[in-house]
Amino acid sequence: MAAAWFQAGVQATATFSLFVRRLPPERGFLLAAGLEDVLQYLRALRFTPEALEWLASLGRFDPAFLDHLAGLAFSGEVRAMPEGTAVFAEEPLLEITAPLIEAQLVETAVINLIQLPTLIASKAVRSVLAAEGRPLAEFGLRRSHGTDAGMKAARATWIAGFESTSNVLAGMRDGIPLSGTMAHSYVSAFGDEMEAFRAYARAHPDGCVLLLDTYDTVAAAHKAVVVATELGAGGHRLAGVRIDSGDLDQLSRAVRRVLDEGGAADVPIIASGGLDEYDVARLVSAGAPIAAFGLGTRIDTSADAPSLDLVYKLVRVGDRDVLKLSTGKETWVGPKAVYRFVGADGRYTGDRLAAADESVPPGAVSLLEPVMAKGALLRLRPSLDEIRARAAVQVASLPEPVRRLGDHATYPVEISPVLRERQAAVRAKR
Amino acid sequence: MAAAWFQAGVQATATFSLFVRRLPPERGFLLAAGLEDVLQYLRALRFTPEALEWLASLGRFDPAFLDHLAGLAFSGEVRAMPEGTAVFAEEPLLEITAPLIEAQLVETAVINLIQLPTLIASKAVRSVLAAEGRPLAEFGLRRSHGTDAGMKAARATWIAGFESTSNVLAGMRDGIPLSGTMAHSYVSAFGDEMEAFRAYARAHPDGCVLLLDTYDTVAAAHKAVVVATELGAGGHRLAGVRIDSGDLDQLSRAVRRVLDEGGAADVPIIASGGLDEYDVARLVSAGAPIAAFGLGTRIDTSADAPSLDLVYKLVRVGDRDVLKLSTGKETWVGPKAVYRFVGADGRYTGDRLAAADESVPPGAVSLLEPVMAKGALLRLRPSLDEIRARAAVQVASLPEPVRRLGDHATYPVEISPVLRERQAAVRAKR
Repeated sequence: MAAAWFQAGVQATATFSLFVRRLPPERGFLLAAGLEDVLQYLRALRFTPEALEWLASLGRFDPAFLDHLAGLAFSGEVRAMPEGTAVFAEEPLLEITAPLIEAQLVETAVINLIQLPTLIASKAVRSVLAAEGRPLAEFGLRRSHGTDAGMKAARATWIAGFESTSNVLAGMRDGIPLSGTMAHSYVSAFGDEMEAFRAYARAHPDGCVLLLDTYDTVAAAHKAVVVATELGAGGHRLAGVRIDSGDLDQLSRAVRRVLDEGGAADVPIIASGGLDEYDVARLVSAGAPIAAFGLGTRIDTSADAPSLDLVYKLVRVGDRDVLKLSTGKETWVGPKAVYRFVGADGRYTGDRLAAADESVPPGAVSLLEPVMAKGALLRLRPSLDEIRARAAVQVASLPEPVRRLGDHATYPVEISPVLRERQAAVRAKR
Repeated sequence: MAAAWFQAGVQATATFSLFVRRLPPERGFLLAAGLEDVLQYLRALRFTPEALEWLASLGRFDPAFLDHLAGLAFSGEVRAMPEGTAVFAEEPLLEITAPLIEAQLVETAVINLIQLPTLIASKAVRSVLAAEGRPLAEFGLRRSHGTDAGMKAARATWIAGFESTSNVLAGMRDGIPLSGTMAHSYVSAFGDEMEAFRAYARAHPDGCVLLLDTYDTVAAAHKAVVVATELGAGGHRLAGVRIDSGDLDQLSRAVRRVLDEGGAADVPIIASGGLDEYDVARLVSAGAPIAAFGLGTRIDTSADAPSLDLVYKLVRVGDRDVLKLSTGKETWVGPKAVYRFVGADGRYTGDRLAAADESVPPGAVSLLEPVMAKGALLRLRPSLDEIRARAAVQVASLPEPVRRLGDHATYPVEISPVLRERQAAVRAKR
């Protein structure tokens, strides 16, 4: 495409809009994430000599076009929702305005970099809501879609409100608190469960979480009482016990009883094993004595909705608003603004998708911020804590029915009359 | 865990087995992939000074243990199914035998590196079967779970029998043939569809695939006829037209008619737009005149089964077979062999999961090959073409009912009597 535009001398400035056409039916809202990676990508965008040589070797491209690519850097502007913003269908997460070739070349990367973090943060926040304050640990690196996805899952679940990750590199790179326990293989390797527990307690007297379900969960709970007593005698405390299989409601009650009767009432029970937000909600509402959850595969793969209908659409070229009419895929024309109305109680009451040149309506805030101009950043990179705090406020401000796990209400997003008129005008001209 | 073993002086050699506990219900078989990445990882495994310093800063680890990590490299052996092997539940894709700490430390990486390529190859091969010889192009990078996943999807779909990818870096790195067409934004940017088509044909006279559904698909087909005629006059050929939305059966017939009547009977129609193997099967069986398919999101995310129940289990430590009894998660003890029986017609008739020290039964082939010993490779890296060819033979040799898209038969995998006896003996000792 870029080669064809270059050859045809097309040099217009274009605006592309990144948005989700429809939310997955299982989601009442999304949490935007991934923007910082996009900005880093845009700043670093270059064609290396190696890549140019390889492109030349294909024999498909004009040397003048490859020369153009050799000098190419991203020179455009970006307006975007900060990471951690609640976002709905048709609302741009970001808009890029740049020379057409630049804006088009980055399409695949921009979608890729936003999709996964947004997908995972949006899935993870549902478990945070379901857990009603109980801490959640991210355990999913092994079943993430590759290593990059594993790193992004640790970051996105942290943004959504998880308390820790078992991904050690994410601890090192992003400063996310770490949590980990033993695997079943750890216990099996010793053969003797008591010996396995004691060895772990000796190595980690202040961070010892014992895995109870390698053989018999309740029998293991009795051994945990012994370890808790031994740790206590040395001035330490057993950090927890974990149950990873079986009927978690019934087993957690049985284990709680053993711990309480053994004087280990302060030792929390952690549950894990292929859980998602529905399991968490069920166990919480049943009153199972589970203090924390470890969640992995189903969160990190967003198992019930493993992709977003996230698209990057041309909405203006030069001074002309543009339109696509493909069946079921019509898009709103022109650069946009997203305005969010806030009620007297601080709760969000609805959004308005408007043309970018409309003014902010009274009682509303504008969600798209200028973050890059002429290829340069307009602000420092926000800290992960800042993004996480923003997400928490956004989620707390959503109407309760929109946040529900099942049968959620649809958050109202209206289309401004000006945008409707412009759409009709462009349609009429075709 | 490693710290606890180190401190307890546990120095045994251990064998871990990597296998899928249960196939997703939608899969009759899996195609093993990802082994080459595992071998590369194991060869490169080191703790960097930066990582060791950071681990020390946590204050959780004994300096003697960190010294041990500083000198650690993978020194064990690996037996594995070559990439492209058809594999079933409970059959080890690989087994690692190494000092316990080494074998345990690599768990998460090994699962992560095998899961995604196996997941995608196993999903992609279903579309290859459904397409009945029609070429498939991988279009999914934008919705892959991150950039690493996008690269792995191009490779895994190629192994499964796809013909090309739109991922240019996969073309450069792995030599996978490239295919790409214009986006709707390309057409929108010109405004005039005819002008957009002609500019593309000028830039790519021998690789021009026109996207027909930006505005009106059938009207665009008439323009494609004009471009085909103009290209023909210059000694070139229109490479194809693509339809990305709407009723693909009905539209492909209408477009085929326009092309045929316009003298462009040799121009193939390519269909795309959120398709999976069921859509391909439906369109093929309806007789829609579609010559090739572009498949993306649903293949690259394995949308109907976005994870595998892939586990890495300790099966022997020292000279002791070990067992895990967790509810629903019992594993077979000891190192294994997988034997595949081949019938007189060359078709596979069933597999046998056996103890590694049992001899190969008559009429069977052994699927696990030694690929690494003392941390060194035992063979050169196979070419991607070799892996792809192996996959094609394996799939062609499966019983037809096992390969069916829906309602597939279960491939017979028997457990050897020796393995059953050993399992019972270990169970009895607990």
